[in-house]
Amino acid sequence: MTVYRLDIAYDGSGFRGYAKQDGHRTVQGELDPAIETVLGSPISTAVAGRTDAGVHAKGQVVSFEYDGAVNDQRLARSLNGILGPEIAIKGIAAVSEAFNARFSATWRRYRYLIDERPTLDPLTRHLAWHVGPPLDIEAMGVVANAYVGHHDFTSFCRTVEGKSNVRRVEESALVQGDDFLEYWVQANAFCQQMVRSLVGFLYDVGRGYSKGETVEEVIAAQDRSTVASVAPPHGLTLWEVGY
Amino acid sequence: MTVYRLDIAYDGSGFRGYAKQDGHRTVQGELDPAIETVLGSPISTAVAGRTDAGVHAKGQVVSFEYDGAVNDQRLARSLNGILGPEIAIKGIAAVSEAFNARFSATWRRYRYLIDERPTLDPLTRHLAWHVGPPLDIEAMGVVANAYVGHHDFTSFCRTVEGKSNVRRVEESALVQGDDFLEYWVQANAFCQQMVRSLVGFLYDVGRGYSKGETVEEVIAAQDRSTVASVAPPHGLTLWEVGY
Repeated sequence: MTVYRLDIAYDGSGFRGYAKQDGHRTVQGELDPAIETVLGSPISTAVAGRTDAGVHAKGQVVSFEYDGAVNDQRLARSLNGILGPEIAIKGIAAVSEAFNARFSATWRRYRYLIDERPTLDPLTRHLAWHVGPPLDIEAMGVVANAYVGHHDFTSFCRTVEGKSNVRRVEESALVQGDDFLEYWVQANAFCQQMVRSLVGFLYDVGRGYSKGETVEEVIAAQDRSTVASVAPPHGLTLWEVGY
Repeated sequence: MTVYRLDIAYDGSGFRGYAKQDGHRTVQGELDPAIETVLGSPISTAVAGRTDAGVHAKGQVVSFEYDGAVNDQRLARSLNGILGPEIAIKGIAAVSEAFNARFSATWRRYRYLIDERPTLDPLTRHLAWHVGPPLDIEAMGVVANAYVGHHDFTSFCRTVEGKSNVRRVEESALVQGDDFLEYWVQANAFCQQMVRSLVGFLYDVGRGYSKGETVEEVIAAQDRSTVASVAPPHGLTLWEVGY
């Protein structure tokens, strides 16, 4: 058996998320059958980040085992031909037998774009969350910093019964770009809806809608109801995965 | 009569160009009726740049006369509500009676994005022309420089019987950005398909497909058949109009 690593990108706009779901168009629902068609063999894929409906990826990683030789470049070309422009195979390589896109990953890095300009930009409307009022960037920066560290992020997660929400946030920073306010966050892993909830709370603080709890109190509460807003998915991109 | 100036942006992907055409979805075909609905009166609009099918705009300018008072901000909000996210009204203002978006314009500036990265980027596929082979940027830069000046651009235009193709190109430059090779061009005006033909010839030179004529010879030929390629519309954005 050889393990193959795929580096892929996608525009999440037209997909009900990464993971396969009966009756819905998903990235995995397109990708897995395309690989099986080209290889002529059933395969089972692992993925670094199971992105939600509407979330994009620039550096998603997928792996699968296959009992046979693969011409990496030809497979990439064939898949790109089948999949069309919404999903791009950026590279395919044979890797160590121990590699698993999900379990070998040591960190994930996401970018969230906030568009503060007065008018929605038609050309980037699928990539950035267009928000109305001016934001208190300084207050948001303080909150972003406070996310860093080893915390129980239950207040920011859609909790799955019996699963821990403890994560290690390694970077969390707001950067003012030319067109957008960029939020960059890196963690060992993220629980469900975590990035969008981190951004939602940032936004509430930025527009002065927070209920007065400090970010430390919100984290300590371990209570989902303390975070009122979840930022929409289209501003979010899975940027890179570390191994 | 008061003259109003509209500054608008649009994603050209879903439109058969700016100008109204029976049976086709166009920007003007959406915009004019929206203005008439809000004002309750027929109007006639002028536009700075009649962009082709699929071409975008970030700084398009439209003007119309209206016999009445308009609350600029309310009109902009109403139009944005009717038009949806593909067309954005960035601003509306009452201007001098002598103003005409088309005839008062003294220059137009366009941006063309070329994506040289190995794989098509799903997130910007509507904004940049993805080209395969590596390009000879230096040779392209020489050509871009040679476009500057007062020339008969017949070799680069879809000629309209009896109309001159003499234009004054004021800036023409290739810039290597983070993700894209950017081509910026500014002229007093452009004839039909001119920017896409200027880029088409740049591309042919960049990939070594030109027939050996220098750019000076191509301009001097005043013959459309000397320029083999017309770059696709989706890489092109009308950036700004000067008055």
